[in-house]
Parts: sequence; structure tokens; C-alpha cells
Amino acid sequence: MAEQVRAIRTRRTILSAAAKIFEEHGYQAATISQILKEARTTKGALYFHFMSKEDLAQAVLAEQDHRIMVPPRISKVQEIVDAVMLHAHRLQTDPMVRAGVRLTMDQMAQGLDRSGPFLRWAEVGRQLLQEAQVRGELLPHAVPAETADVIVGSFAGIQSMSQAVCEYRDLPGRVSAMMRHVLPSAVAPSILASLDLSESRGARVYAEALEAAEAGEAAVTAG
Amino acid sequence: MAEQVRAIRTRRTILSAAAKIFEEHGYQAATISQILKEARTTKGALYFHFMSKEDLAQAVLAEQDHRIMVPPRISKVQEIVDAVMLHAHRLQTDPMVRAGVRLTMDQMAQGLDRSGPFLRWAEVGRQLLQEAQVRGELLPHAVPAETADVIVGSFAGIQSMSQAVCEYRDLPGRVSAMMRHVLPSAVAPSILASLDLSESRGARVYAEALEAAEAGEAAVTAG
Repeated sequence: MAEQVRAIRTRRTILSAAAKIFEEHGYQAATISQILKEARTTKGALYFHFMSKEDLAQAVLAEQDHRIMVPPRISKVQEIVDAVMLHAHRLQTDPMVRAGVRLTMDQMAQGLDRSGPFLRWAEVGRQLLQEAQVRGELLPHAVPAETADVIVGSFAGIQSMSQAVCEYRDLPGRVSAMMRHVLPSAVAPSILASLDLSESRGARVYAEALEAAEAGEAAVTAG
Repeated sequence: MAEQVRAIRTRRTILSAAAKIFEEHGYQAATISQILKEARTTKGALYFHFMSKEDLAQAVLAEQDHRIMVPPRISKVQEIVDAVMLHAHRLQTDPMVRAGVRLTMDQMAQGLDRSGPFLRWAEVGRQLLQEAQVRGELLPHAVPAETADVIVGSFAGIQSMSQAVCEYRDLPGRVSAMMRHVLPSAVAPSILASLDLSESRGARVYAEALEAAEAGEAAVTAG
């Protein structure tokens, strides 16, 4: 058990070091030696956990997906809004999420398949919007897969614009504006009127999700 | 005159070389020596035209702005649609535009101010949408600056997603879907019904703009 804990910690240390090096040098220029030096670990430990530089990058990319879960909502449209707003909040506050998003957006990373995060987010969005459609939350002509693609693509660019312009300070406001523009084309007016699209939503969902996670852990410990 | 032409050509050669090197290595890792080798020119010639690596990158970034002009439209909303669709078309077909967009999206390019293209495009969009507002093309609650920001940010991410997923093959369709989602929240229904948001719009605007430019040159020659 102690060994397992140590292995998980080592993996985490290597991953954080890789995220930092990728962010500083870009995927292309980053080297395994730089990552080893940053992580203060051995080649053996690194290759025990990761096969290659690409494998490390894919692990950093995957960190975006470990979404701290949004609690289920009565409105599935609100659930997708919350997932996006929570992601924006984590992008502002969590260096690992930031590193994953930057790698995803690194159009110069040759030999690294960056399609994963786009396709996985689009799939999560499509599923939530299809559930919303079944529940009658969408307009009759709405196409869940198309709307999901527009939201995922738009978010990617809006975070990039916010980073270039002011290091993410205005990100929640920009994401809220994007949602207010995109959703009325796909969502029924009665649902639209009940949505919370405010800038502070992401921080509140984050606090709520953390509380739920801690309550869950406490229940497991008590059990 | 011959010297001027030669200078313009040399500048162009250096700029193309810089675009290629930035695209291959990323801004951070790229060096002036690599650009000199690619351009097959002298250090003296390079520094005659550009002060530094950042100066070169800013020139590549600025290439996106040399928009082959969209002819004025009766509807200013159609004009902004055409500018975006034309940009998408050029991104698919012009390596220099592609290099500029990739540099803009290079979140790892430390020390390079990448906010320029975002802010300039947002400003062009804001002006066109303000004209549209004066002409009564927008809904009463529409805020031109906010809608322009959403379009510019969304476009940036949608091109990135299209590049990651299929090297830009589906870009016109994705941009058309984005416009169909975003515009109904800001544009009056009567204008909306008259817009051409089809996938093939960008290629047609490009052909039209080229023809207009050639006719202009012919008129100058005849004069």
C-alpha cells in the first residue's frame, strides 16, 4: 500500500514536471532529459510510468478530462453550461489543466495527436445535448452534435484570446458571453430563461463539486 | 525602381522563410540562423528589413490582416460574415496566413505579444457591427463589441479544432455552423433570412475579390 502511494506520487511528480517543461519549451523542443531534471527522478522511474515523450504529453492532455464532476442537474443544458464554466474556472486556477489546454492548442506540436481533447469534449457535449433533446429542452431543429462542436471549438478559441489579451483574467465573462450568443439558437425559450449563465457560475460549481467530493470521502471513511 | 522591386522580393523571401521556421520549430525554439539558412540570404539583408526575431514574428502575424478586401455589401452583417468566411478560405489555401494564425495561437511563445491579431480583428468586427446597428440590422439588445469578441474568439478555436481533427478539411462547414449559432442572438430576423452563410461562401468571395483586384490593376495600367 505504501509502495502504491509512492508510485502514484512519483507519477504525479513526473507529470507536473512534464507539464512545466512542455509549457516552457513547447512540445517540439521539450526533451526527456529536461523533464528528468525538473522532476529530480531517474530515467528508470520515468520509463516505468511513461513510454515516451508523446505518452507523457497524452497524459498531460488527459488531465483536462478528469473533470471534477458537475453534480447532475434537472436541466441537461445547465449541466453542459456548468461543465464548461467549471473548466474555465479550473483553467484560471490549476496549472495542470492550463498545461493540458496549451498542449491541445499547440499547432506546432508535430507528431502529437491533439484531436483527443477536442473529440472527447465534443462527445460529452453531444451526449448531454441529446439527453436535453429527449427531455424537450431543445428547439425542434437543433442538432446536438453540431451545437456541441460549436461550443467546444468556440471555447478553445475564447480561452486562447483571453490568455493572449490578459492572462485569463476576463475568461469567465467571455465564456458567459459565448454561451449567451450560442445557446438561444438551440435551446427552448422556457429552458433558456431558467439557465444560470453568470460569470461567477464556474467558481460556485467548483466549490459545490469539492464539497460533494469531500462528503463522498467522509462517507467512505465512515463506512 | 528595379532595386525597390528586389528589396520587396528579398523581404518576402525572408518572411516566407521565417513563417516556415516558426511553423516547424515554434516561436520559442526558432533561431535567426535557421531563418537565414532557409531564406539563403545574408545577415545584413535580414537586419535591413527586420530588427529581431520578434519583429519577424510580428510581420508574419500582420500578414493575416492584409485582408484581400471584401467588396462592400448592402448588409454589413453579410460583410462581416464574408470577411470571416474569406479568412477561413485563405487559411485553407495560403501557407503565410496559416503561419500567422499558428503564431497567434502559440500559447508557448513567451515574449511575443500575440494579442494584436485578436484585438485588430475584434475592432474590425466591432466597426462593421456598429454600422449594422445604425442601419437597423441588429436586435435592440445587441452589443456590437461583445458579439465581435465572441465571433473572433470562436473562430480562433474552431480553426484550431478543424486543424487538429482533419488539417482544415472541414473548416468551412464548422465556420458556417458557428455563424448559424451565434448570429441569431444579435441580428434582426429579416436580415438573418437574407444572409448567405453557406460553406462555399468563402471560396466565392475570394474569387470575386481577386477579380475586383485584377480589374483595379487593369484600370490603373490603362490610365
